[in-house]
Amino acid sequence: MNNIPVLWLIAPLGAILALIFAAIFFRQVKKQDPGNAKMQEIAGYVREGAFAYLKQQYKGVGIFFIIAFIVFQIMAWGLGVLHWLIPWAFLTGGFFSGLAGYIGMNMATLASNRTTQACTKGLNKGLRIAFRAGSVMGLTVVGLALIDISAWFFILNLLKFPLQQITIIMLSFGMGASTQALFARLGGGIFTKAADVGADLVGKVEANIPEDDPRNPATIADNVGDNVGDVAGMGADLYESYAGSILATAALGMSAVTMLGPAYADWAVKFVVAPMILAGLGIILSIIGIFTVSTKENAGPKELMFALNKSVYSSSILIAICAFFVTKALLPPDYYFGVFISTVIGLAAGILIGFFTELFTSHSYKPTREIANQADYGPATVILEGMSVGMRSTAAPVLIIVIGILAAFICSHGFSSIEMGLYGIGFGAVGMLATLGVTLAMDAFGPIADNAGGNAQMCNLPEDVRLMTDNLDSVGNTTAATGKGFAIGSAALTAMALLAAYLDEVRGALTLVGNKTGKAVFLHTNYNTKFTENIPLAKASIADFIQFFQIHILNPKFLLGVFIGAMVAFVFSSLTIKAVGRAAGEMVKEVRRQFKEIPGIMEGTGKPEYAKCVKISTQAAQREMLMPALVGLLSPIITGLIFGVPGVLGILAGALSTGFVLAVMMNNAGGAWDNAKKYIETEKKAKGTEIHKASIVGDTVGDPFKDTAGPCINILVKLMSMISIVFSGLIVNYSLHVENINPPFTKVHLDRKVENKVIMVDKDSLDVNGNYPPTTPPEIIIK
Amino acid sequence: MNNIPVLWLIAPLGAILALIFAAIFFRQVKKQDPGNAKMQEIAGYVREGAFAYLKQQYKGVGIFFIIAFIVFQIMAWGLGVLHWLIPWAFLTGGFFSGLAGYIGMNMATLASNRTTQACTKGLNKGLRIAFRAGSVMGLTVVGLALIDISAWFFILNLLKFPLQQITIIMLSFGMGASTQALFARLGGGIFTKAADVGADLVGKVEANIPEDDPRNPATIADNVGDNVGDVAGMGADLYESYAGSILATAALGMSAVTMLGPAYADWAVKFVVAPMILAGLGIILSIIGIFTVSTKENAGPKELMFALNKSVYSSSILIAICAFFVTKALLPPDYYFGVFISTVIGLAAGILIGFFTELFTSHSYKPTREIANQADYGPATVILEGMSVGMRSTAAPVLIIVIGILAAFICSHGFSSIEMGLYGIGFGAVGMLATLGVTLAMDAFGPIADNAGGNAQMCNLPEDVRLMTDNLDSVGNTTAATGKGFAIGSAALTAMALLAAYLDEVRGALTLVGNKTGKAVFLHTNYNTKFTENIPLAKASIADFIQFFQIHILNPKFLLGVFIGAMVAFVFSSLTIKAVGRAAGEMVKEVRRQFKEIPGIMEGTGKPEYAKCVKISTQAAQREMLMPALVGLLSPIITGLIFGVPGVLGILAGALSTGFVLAVMMNNAGGAWDNAKKYIETEKKAKGTEIHKASIVGDTVGDPFKDTAGPCINILVKLMSMISIVFSGLIVNYSLHVENINPPFTKVHLDRKVENKVIMVDKDSLDVNGNYPPTTPPEIIIK
Repeated sequence: MNNIPVLWLIAPLGAILALIFAAIFFRQVKKQDPGNAKMQEIAGYVREGAFAYLKQQYKGVGIFFIIAFIVFQIMAWGLGVLHWLIPWAFLTGGFFSGLAGYIGMNMATLASNRTTQACTKGLNKGLRIAFRAGSVMGLTVVGLALIDISAWFFILNLLKFPLQQITIIMLSFGMGASTQALFARLGGGIFTKAADVGADLVGKVEANIPEDDPRNPATIADNVGDNVGDVAGMGADLYESYAGSILATAALGMSAVTMLGPAYADWAVKFVVAPMILAGLGIILSIIGIFTVSTKENAGPKELMFALNKSVYSSSILIAICAFFVTKALLPPDYYFGVFISTVIGLAAGILIGFFTELFTSHSYKPTREIANQADYGPATVILEGMSVGMRSTAAPVLIIVIGILAAFICSHGFSSIEMGLYGIGFGAVGMLATLGVTLAMDAFGPIADNAGGNAQMCNLPEDVRLMTDNLDSVGNTTAATGKGFAIGSAALTAMALLAAYLDEVRGALTLVGNKTGKAVFLHTNYNTKFTENIPLAKASIADFIQFFQIHILNPKFLLGVFIGAMVAFVFSSLTIKAVGRAAGEMVKEVRRQFKEIPGIMEGTGKPEYAKCVKISTQAAQREMLMPALVGLLSPIITGLIFGVPGVLGILAGALSTGFVLAVMMNNAGGAWDNAKKYIETEKKAKGTEIHKASIVGDTVGDPFKDTAGPCINILVKLMSMISIVFSGLIVNYSLHVENINPPFTKVHLDRKVENKVIMVDKDSLDVNGNYPPTTPPEIIIK
Repeated sequence: MNNIPVLWLIAPLGAILALIFAAIFFRQVKKQDPGNAKMQEIAGYVREGAFAYLKQQYKGVGIFFIIAFIVFQIMAWGLGVLHWLIPWAFLTGGFFSGLAGYIGMNMATLASNRTTQACTKGLNKGLRIAFRAGSVMGLTVVGLALIDISAWFFILNLLKFPLQQITIIMLSFGMGASTQALFARLGGGIFTKAADVGADLVGKVEANIPEDDPRNPATIADNVGDNVGDVAGMGADLYESYAGSILATAALGMSAVTMLGPAYADWAVKFVVAPMILAGLGIILSIIGIFTVSTKENAGPKELMFALNKSVYSSSILIAICAFFVTKALLPPDYYFGVFISTVIGLAAGILIGFFTELFTSHSYKPTREIANQADYGPATVILEGMSVGMRSTAAPVLIIVIGILAAFICSHGFSSIEMGLYGIGFGAVGMLATLGVTLAMDAFGPIADNAGGNAQMCNLPEDVRLMTDNLDSVGNTTAATGKGFAIGSAALTAMALLAAYLDEVRGALTLVGNKTGKAVFLHTNYNTKFTENIPLAKASIADFIQFFQIHILNPKFLLGVFIGAMVAFVFSSLTIKAVGRAAGEMVKEVRRQFKEIPGIMEGTGKPEYAKCVKISTQAAQREMLMPALVGLLSPIITGLIFGVPGVLGILAGALSTGFVLAVMMNNAGGAWDNAKKYIETEKKAKGTEIHKASIVGDTVGDPFKDTAGPCINILVKLMSMISIVFSGLIVNYSLHVENINPPFTKVHLDRKVENKVIMVDKDSLDVNGNYPPTTPPEIIIK
């Protein structure tokens, strides 16, 4: 068993603390006044719809997981290209992510009417309940993620697995979480936008009734959508980011310490646990942060906003301080400070990206206002201006990420050891997400307030209650910007770390056995390889590795992979947008039918069939989420089988870069359109005019951009890396057997030292008869 | 002087033939009946406006060229990082491209009223004139491009420059053409869309008068726009593609022959001239093709279409046959067949891309019809469906290009010699564009027919004349699809070839001097380097080169470059779309003012001030084209100065992949929206309904997509590569002086053998005191 430092206990302890506080908060919220019978009835419909959806969703995803599990078992036992524990890690990742979503939504659907009721007594009271409910979500996500990571780490150590294998097995836990996240975001996003667009198109535009009107059959579905999309979907999304960043950094730590040389062998386990410990400390800071948020009883929206922002900034500063002590305690004296600075850079980058997101999407600033001004010329100019703003807004995040990554890379000695540089970058991502407990709480309370507003509207509560919930909602939207900055920034960093982990895994599948002549000899092993003699093995160096696979820009396999990656990002977006459109079309038909067929529905005497709309959204989400998911899941595998390792690296680089830029564009354009509409409603007071109608077109276009396609791409990119990692054994195996090996290498079957394995040797190291090893076997040494 | 094969004379001969026939066709068209006085007056306005614009445009671009010329002179004489002839080649490239645009537009503005007049006598008569006028454009473009290439090649050979330098100097001729093309497309695109959108928004929507109504002050500007955007802009665009593909392939040929080894030294000049000869033969085929197009007197639109398509397909088959004989005659027996097959693959890829472009944008097929069906739900769903179609339509071109490039690469022995593979890819691009003379003629006759229609409308000619010109226009649109396929395909291929040429140029700036110990020694030279001793020099091999610059996916400088490249494509698009929006806004204001202030304008008694609208579009185009152009021009230079060579390669890969996909998306979405609107007008007969209005929103959004941003990106990508090539000396020089050299290399100043040059040596090749060369200087040999 590896010598796990005692400090590591902070990780499981933090996780358990998070779960305890989540349970306490859950009970607190549940105890609150649920409001009058009508409010409870409406909330009950939403709750029922949400659980019906989740049941269906988990059934579908469950089938997918079972199929994947079987495929992985075949890969593990049949082909020997996967470790046998990986399918199990994959399962638990998916399970815990799903569980977090379930608990979060359970809380959110209980909290909505309680928030409404509290808002009748004041803004601050409403905030407290919504924020506490959001905290349950935040703490459940980080708690379950970290407890699962800790448990796996502990058990694998107990089973005396080597550290290198532990980190790789645990990465496949991340793949489970990513798969679950993609389905949750896709399904939730399609559900919520189908209901939203459907409700708006028929309700607002055709029947001329206000939003959240109980006469609209799609209203309940719309409110269910907020829960399944914005609560369960976002929870699974951030669960994946959080777990992914910790796991990728741990894997990079292992790789970094290997490359530092045998002198650093004792540090290995510390490199691996450091990100977990930082995450554990982050949870404790999050819990403190959640408690400090409560403000005075009679606080206004500005003060609430300030209180929330303060807690984000102070937790960022505190986590930076923690990072200093964690790195100092666990990393070698020459390296810890660089890694610490990388963490600070990561945090600063997150805050800056949040600021620029705000700048381009809030109607306090010029870009969104210009979109609103273009409404004078009609919908076409609104769309064009919004597209232009969205595209332009990609500059700042890209430059921040680029400069941040490079700075982190340099600080953590990346140019003398690429692996250390990548470890620093990973640590930056962990730093950004360490306080996810509190930032996610802030993200999650927005949709809860939104639902509370819907509840107020449908129960005909006084106008000022609705105003109160709207205020809460807008407070949530503003504070969420920083959270979004962290989410975007960490996604890019984690994706880059995963790319590195992929390379590392391939290098693992292809072991370098240098021989006396100084020529490279690659031994292609798999998990079933049994060494009959004691051959000292080492990982190929990056330079050897790159030469072997010809991973450079002139290898068309790599460059064409980049093309395919860019294309996959676009096609995936196309399919999600199309899916929303198709589902919304069905919803429109159903709402029209009910308006026509149910007598007295417009007078409020006939009752709309809410459940039918929920069912349509649920079924559409299930059906439509499959195609985009398959494109994302299969494209790296197919590319790998055709173009080999350079192709996979190409597709990952292409999808990562194009996907990141495209996601920022869609998120920001969508946000800006939304707020341009709000600006016209609140500042220009032009509700109901042609200008307003033009801005609604922008908002409707932006909906699937910002709530379906955009967030899904962020997950897609990471999932593609995860899949490449898990399938790397298969692809290396396959492509080495099928392909010609690039010169100067050649393939030789070698049965003497290892059982029936392929070995790739530099042609110069063969003897005159083309045999390897030469008649007098060379002494095999580590290069 | 290098031994130029006699066959080479086909190139200048073809060019001269093209110019002679262009002159003959020009006179033929000019001789035709120009129509009645009113028709001549209207045509005169358009002609006047077009020349006013061109004068202004060339003035602005001229200033830019002078500044660039001075900068290049400083780089050549002051810094010694550029060959002294490069600024001159740059100038001639820009000049001839501009000249081709001028002549083409001169012809187009003369042809419009003559086509209208001919249409009064029958469709076939109109087609002949429009097509002859288009042929003038086509033949001028290929003639001027090939004559300039031939002249430079001949003179540089006369001056006894080594072949390697000749190909590089000539590439900068391509950079002049690319710069001119970017400005022409940007200026023309902004002009035409500002006028178009401005005319539509006030005229059609607010004042409710039909398109091309003489009462609309922006009508003339709109017609001028068709000429400056679709004729002059497209001419410059394809001039650049045509010249770029020939020049890049010549440079790759040089590089390929070098890498084949000294045994092939005699083939060098043949490798370089082969693409020029193929282009010369292509011109002759084009002229034959133009003559075969004329059909029977009483042909209907279907027969015309068939006649045009037949000529494209037959010229593709003939050029493939020519490619066989050219490669057989000029390339070594082991290699010619592979290169020939690559050409065939290129042609097939072009035709296939054209087919899929048609599939996604013509309203004969499902995708565009589905956009039209979404109009039932309003403009938002039209936009969403169009975006989805555009994004989805990227799959086919990317896969065709990917498979085509890989197939061409393999056929031309790319895996044993990357350089030969790239030469094959370049040859594919030359094959696609060789018959540009006839395909461009087909592209150019669309806008001429469009203008003829405008003329008919404004002169109140009978309805059936307008119907005739509309028919002509739609024939042009359909046959243009194949041309577009070739343009897109060749752009991707040429850009990839230019990427390779960049690497080659950098490898040239960094000479490898292998020493006895087998360790790499790089000598960093520039154009002013004078060798005082006779050191045998060689280009670094790709493997050495990649190791030296650490060009691999884990070098963050490379990966971050990919991010920046993806971002530049989006920001560039944003700026162009924004520019169109701003210019259109000004136009709207002016048209509104004239409607308000000029008495009797709506009754046809007051005369609109056409010239003012032309002036607004002209000025807006001049002002607005600067920002996007600067982003494109400066981004590779700045990235290079900060991130060095890996950064430049990254930005090129990122911009190429994302830009290609984004351009296809915008072009196809725009085309599909346009045709969805036409489908609603012609098939659904729903002109004037809400459905129609919704489809107009799509069309308006699509206009800057397909006519400004989309085409500009294709040029941008190639221009970025060209700039990187020209600035490579500066960037290598700068980054080697500023940066730390990547391990295992180190920097040593070496004054003994070369004058004050920096030399990079593998640390192992230093002696114990860290001196290089070691006290006993090693014998320097070519590695």
